[in-house]
Amino acid sequence: MPVDQNAAIEITAFDWVPEFARGYVRDLRPRWACEELGLPYRERLISAVQRPEWYFRDQPWGQVPHLRDGEISLFESGATLVHLGERGGGGSALLPASGQARASVLSWTFAAFNSVEPYVFEWANVGIFSAKQEWAKLRRPSLLAELGGRLDRLQDALGEREWLADAFSIADIAMVTTLRAADDSGLLEERPGLAAYLARGMGRPAFHTAMAAQLAAFSAEAPSRVQGA
Amino acid sequence: MPVDQNAAIEITAFDWVPEFARGYVRDLRPRWACEELGLPYRERLISAVQRPEWYFRDQPWGQVPHLRDGEISLFESGATLVHLGERGGGGSALLPASGQARASVLSWTFAAFNSVEPYVFEWANVGIFSAKQEWAKLRRPSLLAELGGRLDRLQDALGEREWLADAFSIADIAMVTTLRAADDSGLLEERPGLAAYLARGMGRPAFHTAMAAQLAAFSAEAPSRVQGA
Repeated sequence: MPVDQNAAIEITAFDWVPEFARGYVRDLRPRWACEELGLPYRERLISAVQRPEWYFRDQPWGQVPHLRDGEISLFESGATLVHLGERGGGGSALLPASGQARASVLSWTFAAFNSVEPYVFEWANVGIFSAKQEWAKLRRPSLLAELGGRLDRLQDALGEREWLADAFSIADIAMVTTLRAADDSGLLEERPGLAAYLARGMGRPAFHTAMAAQLAAFSAEAPSRVQGA
Repeated sequence: MPVDQNAAIEITAFDWVPEFARGYVRDLRPRWACEELGLPYRERLISAVQRPEWYFRDQPWGQVPHLRDGEISLFESGATLVHLGERGGGGSALLPASGQARASVLSWTFAAFNSVEPYVFEWANVGIFSAKQEWAKLRRPSLLAELGGRLDRLQDALGEREWLADAFSIADIAMVTTLRAADDSGLLEERPGLAAYLARGMGRPAFHTAMAAQLAAFSAEAPSRVQGA
């Protein structure tokens, strides 16, 4: 599904990020959901280096993604996934409309956002953004142990299933993109069930198309403010 | 709405927690939503000290709450809030069924769970669970600055409104319970708009009833395993 600048759905993304962040910015999530659902979307690109002041009215933290769907405006990647999963009224394969199928997808979606990703946020802070800080060096071993324990439980809960709920869903979009960001910890390769799950998710054609679209949106050159900083 | 052991909705909570955690365990969230909606619920109390092995089949991390509604099983407090907000089919005042009203509630609900609470989790770790660790002492100032920055944005986004979306919603249950857990940071009292929002949320009768029910479920005596530990 090519990006279509006349589409009703608009996804806000960044026009440039540093090399290490490319492919990991969270507009990947609604892009991926749109690809799975066959929904065209248009892009609105903003500067990550100098976030426009007006943008904070759409997104209180100045982060991406923001999603517009006709007259409707949403922020937080989790909310964009629920909205896209519900689009069309009766729900979709990505978010069933009712019953245990819906309950399982909701449970695992919030599990990704509130019970796994907070550890991954801290991992990114300790390993990248604050890596040179003394506290980060001291924190690293206990954080690895805590994240590893959480991943053990996740692997146990997944068991022999292919996806977190009965079928591929927004919960898998949330969890796969969360786990990817911890892949440099070495914890995934020590857990073959999770490593296989991650590979399954990243092997979906819609993931590849979404990733290519995110990467295509970045300009090659760093903005002058960054070069001069 | 008294706890009713014949109710269709079952909330799993702990039968004892240490003093500092009382009133802060996250079964408070679905209890509060039930009280707002006038839905009776029954309790299933488990040990926090020795989590039953069977419970991990209901809740992969062994945490509370877990919610059962007839045949439907959910975990993660965020998922329980969405489920309760949607109960009755067409949505409720706590989670409107469609349009911008629904989009705003979903956005702010995920904002609480994924953009504010991760900082509060880290705050609790630095200030309580790991308080004696050297890394935690060193981390404290930068974490306070980051959490404070996030709260500044939250206060700006709330502006003069009474609640995060148009009316009181599951987003406020999520955000008020998140902010409460950072109240000992001193950051709330420095931000009068947020302090007033927190007081408004905690002033609702349904909050008081839910809190009283959580506290009433705790046995006074610590389990012997804890006393002997």
